[in-house]
Amino acid sequence: MGEPLTVGVDFGTLSGRAVVVRVADGAELGSGVFEYPHGVLDETLPATGRALPPEWALQVPADYVGVLRNAVPAALRDAGVDAADVVGIATDFTACTMVPTTADGTPLCELPEFEGNPHAYVKLWKHHSAQPQAVRINDLARARGEKWLPRYGGLISSEWEFAKALELFEEAPEVYAAMRHWVEAADWIVWQLAGTYVRNACTAGYKGILQDGQYPSRDFLRELAPGFESFVADKLEHPLGQLGSRVGSLTAEAAAWTGLPEGIAVAVGNVDAHVTAPAAQAVEPGQMVAIMGTSTCHVMNGAELREVPGMCGVVEGGIVAGLWGYEAGQSGVGDIFGWFVEHGVPASYEGHEHLTRLAAQQEIGEHGLIALDWHSGNRSVLVDHELSGVVVGQTLATRAEDVYRALLEATAFGTRKIIETFNAAGVPVTELIIAGGLTKNALLMQIYADVTNLPLSVIGSAQGPALGSAIHAAVAAGAHADIRAAAAAMGSVERAVYRPVPAHVAAYDELYAEYTQLHDYFGRGGNDVMHRLAARRRAVSKAVAKGQS
Amino acid sequence: MGEPLTVGVDFGTLSGRAVVVRVADGAELGSGVFEYPHGVLDETLPATGRALPPEWALQVPADYVGVLRNAVPAALRDAGVDAADVVGIATDFTACTMVPTTADGTPLCELPEFEGNPHAYVKLWKHHSAQPQAVRINDLARARGEKWLPRYGGLISSEWEFAKALELFEEAPEVYAAMRHWVEAADWIVWQLAGTYVRNACTAGYKGILQDGQYPSRDFLRELAPGFESFVADKLEHPLGQLGSRVGSLTAEAAAWTGLPEGIAVAVGNVDAHVTAPAAQAVEPGQMVAIMGTSTCHVMNGAELREVPGMCGVVEGGIVAGLWGYEAGQSGVGDIFGWFVEHGVPASYEGHEHLTRLAAQQEIGEHGLIALDWHSGNRSVLVDHELSGVVVGQTLATRAEDVYRALLEATAFGTRKIIETFNAAGVPVTELIIAGGLTKNALLMQIYADVTNLPLSVIGSAQGPALGSAIHAAVAAGAHADIRAAAAAMGSVERAVYRPVPAHVAAYDELYAEYTQLHDYFGRGGNDVMHRLAARRRAVSKAVAKGQS
Repeated sequence: MGEPLTVGVDFGTLSGRAVVVRVADGAELGSGVFEYPHGVLDETLPATGRALPPEWALQVPADYVGVLRNAVPAALRDAGVDAADVVGIATDFTACTMVPTTADGTPLCELPEFEGNPHAYVKLWKHHSAQPQAVRINDLARARGEKWLPRYGGLISSEWEFAKALELFEEAPEVYAAMRHWVEAADWIVWQLAGTYVRNACTAGYKGILQDGQYPSRDFLRELAPGFESFVADKLEHPLGQLGSRVGSLTAEAAAWTGLPEGIAVAVGNVDAHVTAPAAQAVEPGQMVAIMGTSTCHVMNGAELREVPGMCGVVEGGIVAGLWGYEAGQSGVGDIFGWFVEHGVPASYEGHEHLTRLAAQQEIGEHGLIALDWHSGNRSVLVDHELSGVVVGQTLATRAEDVYRALLEATAFGTRKIIETFNAAGVPVTELIIAGGLTKNALLMQIYADVTNLPLSVIGSAQGPALGSAIHAAVAAGAHADIRAAAAAMGSVERAVYRPVPAHVAAYDELYAEYTQLHDYFGRGGNDVMHRLAARRRAVSKAVAKGQS
Repeated sequence: MGEPLTVGVDFGTLSGRAVVVRVADGAELGSGVFEYPHGVLDETLPATGRALPPEWALQVPADYVGVLRNAVPAALRDAGVDAADVVGIATDFTACTMVPTTADGTPLCELPEFEGNPHAYVKLWKHHSAQPQAVRINDLARARGEKWLPRYGGLISSEWEFAKALELFEEAPEVYAAMRHWVEAADWIVWQLAGTYVRNACTAGYKGILQDGQYPSRDFLRELAPGFESFVADKLEHPLGQLGSRVGSLTAEAAAWTGLPEGIAVAVGNVDAHVTAPAAQAVEPGQMVAIMGTSTCHVMNGAELREVPGMCGVVEGGIVAGLWGYEAGQSGVGDIFGWFVEHGVPASYEGHEHLTRLAAQQEIGEHGLIALDWHSGNRSVLVDHELSGVVVGQTLATRAEDVYRALLEATAFGTRKIIETFNAAGVPVTELIIAGGLTKNALLMQIYADVTNLPLSVIGSAQGPALGSAIHAAVAAGAHADIRAAAAAMGSVERAVYRPVPAHVAAYDELYAEYTQLHDYFGRGGNDVMHRLAARRRAVSKAVAKGQS
């Protein structure tokens, strides 16, 4: 028998990726990817061709099983290892992504009577049509002074379990009635592996409003919608599992799918961002991990509970058992750069690298611009998705690389705003560790170091979430004592790869003051023009759609 | 002998255009163009190859004579008329464009001893290096409470006669000493035609600070720069001619150049924007002409003297003798659209017409954007060239045509701001007449009608300035009694081509309120971020240039 191995599987928005990792040192021996055949359903239902309304985003659960059947065997082949050496498997998932199921975990969309009902499908994290429900939840929680509200920076998202469930309850009562469990996909996939349903502490807290052992009360739910008061008891409540603990053993069926040995450890489910923290060895208070891709998710452990204005949430054991896990985010980062390259750059430029090269030749402030990074709204710390982007300072001499650099800088200012808010709330950020696809842009990284005045550490793995899952699998299998120990052995991070340059820090301090002034003017009531523009845009679009129909 | 004709010649920034016009009805019978061989000198001097500093813009006076020698004969040939039927010639010019000459009108740059001295050349209107001198003029005028200052909206431009002259006095005393006359090119070209130097009332007022018959005092000039107190008496002061009056007769030499009969009437010089007003039959109080090209110039007659905040100037007889001529402007209009198409639009678009077609399909407010049109600074009513452009409201769904439309709208809001400022100052605007190249964009025209809530009239001629000059020539030749009569006979305008649509007007009223709020925030001290960004950009650029030299 060879060295013990684990498999981590990262379920993303469009595909799943499996890696085979050596338990002793975290070496990534092989990987495999499987793209979801149905991708994201945002136009029509596959079974019937029925059109979906705007803001809908569904998935097909069988696609997730396809990852187990294809990506895991591919990773094993790629690694060239003996599957018998694998001692555990763990998974991480997008969240909040919800599967309505029967008592045995069968997704309702797999029942013939519901294949034509969109509400029976998986509602992906970016399914945004439950916004009216979210507004009602927030208004009522504020009015009642619910003490869980500040744990979420004061706002429950339309993406989360309760808003999506209320939408289901109100818009598809027949599906709601047939549903026994309202399951995070993160837990549903573990159910498929181990044959056991366990709710993971991470999503239960961040997305399910479980705080201090309590969900929102029957009273609250009744006032929200008569008949909805039994939602928690009937559909949601279920035994909890701490991150890194063992749910059970790999079933014979899942062993056949994956090619892994029956009976190996299956870990509690987890979320892509949160699972990345141990992969980057960021398991101590103050170590903030920014997972930078199309958007940025910030996760950090804290020793104590604090209410940070505008954070996404704080959950006990939400990242590592025994610590308070904090989460914040920027809803637009890489997708802003991508949008600009696609829609705002003339043909003479050759894409991101070309623009980055030109932008890197500039001194700070040479472009004369300042931008707000709200093209996809603001998740933290304003928690306002009606906000939008701004560029100030354009002249006839402004070139595409100038705006590009200003947008890079704007996202760095946004991260600094989050860090400062955490610091001010008594959750000090002492180290910034970057993971995700944007780590490869050295200019962007240096700008982040200069803007935040923090040395930037960079995760050692290009597959942070999958590695993080493999770490959790190792703990679930008993190969390491706990997440801390497993992270130390298997995670990897390069410290202080980018150091702040004092002259740059001083220059950016001044530009950050400009950012803050505009941030507060447009974001904190100085001028609500963005809300008015968004409302007008919506009203006009609706009228246009109506006129055309 | 045929019907009486006149020739109008319009001297632009890069070329001169002559038209042959029938005096009876203004029919344009033929035209000719001549591009200045030296164009704009902004990099090196032709004689020596000497490099020019940034912000310099010079011209070569012989190029203007080239227009007389080439464009006028070409226009006569094109018209197929007998030159003997031409009874007068008139010209209009860019302003303020200054020629330093000897006593007989020889440009100093034509003297061998000065051919290597950039200060001996024509300083074109957009020669901007006299900004420090302009600042001193304004500061001192404000401090002394000079009563001419409010006649210029409170600010003397670096482009005008005194700032450029002070630059000459201080930076090239030998050229200053050799100069007998500091001549507007508008008057220099007339001097070449008629052999007589007459200062036209238009530029003397708008650019030469002649108000109520007085130039700035010796006291003022001495305090500005010792030794400069005799500038007016020694170099500037000279008999004035009213617009449309006759300076003299075409000389034999000029007759030989142009192919026109010796002895025909030569009219007083004029400025391209101002001469366009009679071409559009806009000779009564309240008829505002907007000449829309890369920038927009607004000219209008008023019955009374009022001090309009942020206007460019008010001059008695500045457009039509007997009325007060008001001028305002927007420093960036067509050049903002051009800049955007060149630098902010991906390859999938095919230019202005394609963008306009897409933008025209939108409802008002559908793009969710609001922009400030200050990419080239703000000439009226803020008179601040350190301001810059802003776009608010961009999202990942924003497309190039959205921004394009927002920029079109922003310039319309800028025009409305000027109109409202005139109205509020007691100079009511009753009609808006558009001239210039942008009249061909029907979407832009409709937006201007909807934003200003004024029916838009459009000039009938595509060669407004040259036609305007031909009208002045007819008056100078005695073929019409005065400019009013000549404009009625020879000018042309189509009334109310674009009418405001009430629903559009209401929607734009709301967006204009947003524009105003941002206009005042960024332009009137709410947030001086644009000034700080510009100062930083300048400082950094200077440091970079120094490091490279």
